[in-house]
Amino acid sequence: MKDTLLNRLLVNVLGIPGILLLIWLGDIYFAVFIILVTLIAIWEYYSINELKGAKPVKWIGMLATILIGILYYQGAMQIQTITSGIIILVIVVMLVEMYRGLPDPTKTIAITLFGIFYIPFLLGTLIALRNWDSEVGTHLTLAVFVSVWVCDSFAYLFGKKWGKSKMLERVSPNKTVVGCISGVFGALLVYSIFQLTGYLGMPFDWLDIVILALITGIFGQAGDFAESMIKRDMGVKDSGTMLQAHGGVFDRFDSLFFTGSLTYVYVYLVLGI
Amino acid sequence: MKDTLLNRLLVNVLGIPGILLLIWLGDIYFAVFIILVTLIAIWEYYSINELKGAKPVKWIGMLATILIGILYYQGAMQIQTITSGIIILVIVVMLVEMYRGLPDPTKTIAITLFGIFYIPFLLGTLIALRNWDSEVGTHLTLAVFVSVWVCDSFAYLFGKKWGKSKMLERVSPNKTVVGCISGVFGALLVYSIFQLTGYLGMPFDWLDIVILALITGIFGQAGDFAESMIKRDMGVKDSGTMLQAHGGVFDRFDSLFFTGSLTYVYVYLVLGI
Repeated sequence: MKDTLLNRLLVNVLGIPGILLLIWLGDIYFAVFIILVTLIAIWEYYSINELKGAKPVKWIGMLATILIGILYYQGAMQIQTITSGIIILVIVVMLVEMYRGLPDPTKTIAITLFGIFYIPFLLGTLIALRNWDSEVGTHLTLAVFVSVWVCDSFAYLFGKKWGKSKMLERVSPNKTVVGCISGVFGALLVYSIFQLTGYLGMPFDWLDIVILALITGIFGQAGDFAESMIKRDMGVKDSGTMLQAHGGVFDRFDSLFFTGSLTYVYVYLVLGI
Repeated sequence: MKDTLLNRLLVNVLGIPGILLLIWLGDIYFAVFIILVTLIAIWEYYSINELKGAKPVKWIGMLATILIGILYYQGAMQIQTITSGIIILVIVVMLVEMYRGLPDPTKTIAITLFGIFYIPFLLGTLIALRNWDSEVGTHLTLAVFVSVWVCDSFAYLFGKKWGKSKMLERVSPNKTVVGCISGVFGALLVYSIFQLTGYLGMPFDWLDIVILALITGIFGQAGDFAESMIKRDMGVKDSGTMLQAHGGVFDRFDSLFFTGSLTYVYVYLVLGI
């Protein structure tokens, strides 16, 4: 009891002036302090989740914590709109779940937010990609869609004909190594044709073309696997029946979640357009 | 079988040229298309999650889907860095979970991402708030911390002495209505003193002061409740033992998650500084 009171006192005596000092020092000192606080807090958050059987990827959470801290530190001015939007979103989801008072609120909040970041946040980039420039934007968006279609078709056709050894049977039992490699070549073929005909225009050299094709070839198929993983987790074969034998809309666009968003990232960040 | 093939054909005959047309039209047409696709996809995503017992807040997911689409539409240029960062984060978490091959991958991904958006994304705003301006930023950050401390203390002291009816017993059994109202007055008191002494400086008029105080008074306590909800969900009383009788770091900063981030949102978006 005495020990407890002493500890409480110690925390206040060191903690409050310490924080005041860090606020006064500001800059890197305050930034590092907040990053450390969030690092410990997210570690605790993951640990109490583990008590109930969850297995969060702790190191990613902690790495992201550091990166987000650095982003805030480097200048929040240009990111204010999107940041404010996400802040309000997270708070609203939490308050609504508190109001609902159902069991497993954390899982509910998490599943809700993940859906938002996985689906519109990734796929919505296609809108930006298309609007980037009336000509190049249009042509590149077209290249993304066509390369995904050809990649999927090559993977299916060549995989069915010559494929033997499975790619990742646990997640998607029908995918073969031959099929996946054929898919990559399909994407390369489409981008090469687009480049050779001059259709994609000036901004891209051949290195860009190969990378863009690999974004479709590799991450399109990875996006397909990722969506299969979620369906397998839920015990369903299709995400819906809206497109009849094609399954759901989620199924049909699964390759575009990673491909579209990574193409956007490549064009905006790496090419600096 | 015939019907199925016909349907497949119909989807391709209408779908592919339709998408090509929308790409060519671009602008609002393509944006609305992508928003509709993501709306259906997120609905399906939530529906298959429900098969396994989850209860996602569907309408928030769908509303957010629309808003994110609009944000992308209105101009992605100023949000490229933060957006790219989140895109890469989401994809990396999903690929890592696919590699791990553990049960319940969706829940794991969701819980992992939620932690990132809840903890560093909200609390990290304090770094930006502090760095905004060497003088006003410092003073406002100080006001946030001090008002939270006084709010918590008032709520505890007055609630213990005069509080009878519970605020939200299901989540936090010790909190009383009197305590919560006292906390709001505590926050108002701190901000009023800061304003009357001229400490906060020029940018704030009395309406700003009242709103900032309410952000601490109302959302600080709501943030406390939200963190309690998560702990109750996990069956723990404290998030950790790092601060001994104070519980964990997560416990101690619970009021600041919502307060810090909403103060940041208010200052940057509403005041337009």
